[in-house]
Amino acid sequence: MNFVLLIGLVAGFLTTVAYVPEVYRIFITKDTKGISLLWLVILLTGAILWFVYGLDIYSLPVIFANGISALLIVIMLILKLRLH
Amino acid sequence: MNFVLLIGLVAGFLTTVAYVPEVYRIFITKDTKGISLLWLVILLTGAILWFVYGLDIYSLPVIFANGISALLIVIMLILKLRLH
Repeated sequence: MNFVLLIGLVAGFLTTVAYVPEVYRIFITKDTKGISLLWLVILLTGAILWFVYGLDIYSLPVIFANGISALLIVIMLILKLRLH
Repeated sequence: MNFVLLIGLVAGFLTTVAYVPEVYRIFITKDTKGISLLWLVILLTGAILWFVYGLDIYSLPVIFANGISALLIVIMLILKLRLH
């Protein structure tokens, strides 16, 4: 694995893992009031566009990080809509 | 401007602009209790590594989005440390 790819994968791991505490908090507290629906939709649209961009430029870190981020955001979105 | 670059720039705009309400909220409320220091440090490290990765692969969207994100996270970090 080359060094540049490694930097990208570590970057992607960090910014993706940053969503986990929020997803976990919602699961435990069932409280989604602190999270705005508009914010989730903006983030999800962004993640999906990053994913498409990653495919276009053949960047594995961009693809992986935003694919997983999009999944985590979808989980938050479903919890938000079901618990609201 | 080619279409792929445009997708990347829109993606970067959306995921960067997602930080703005939080920065604004902290400015207005002076309340940083809801934000963990560890979380900010993880996000900042991630954004800086993405920035470096963006430079390495010559991706303007990755460079711009994460450069501006890093600045916004630094602002939150300074507010967190000063207001705590």
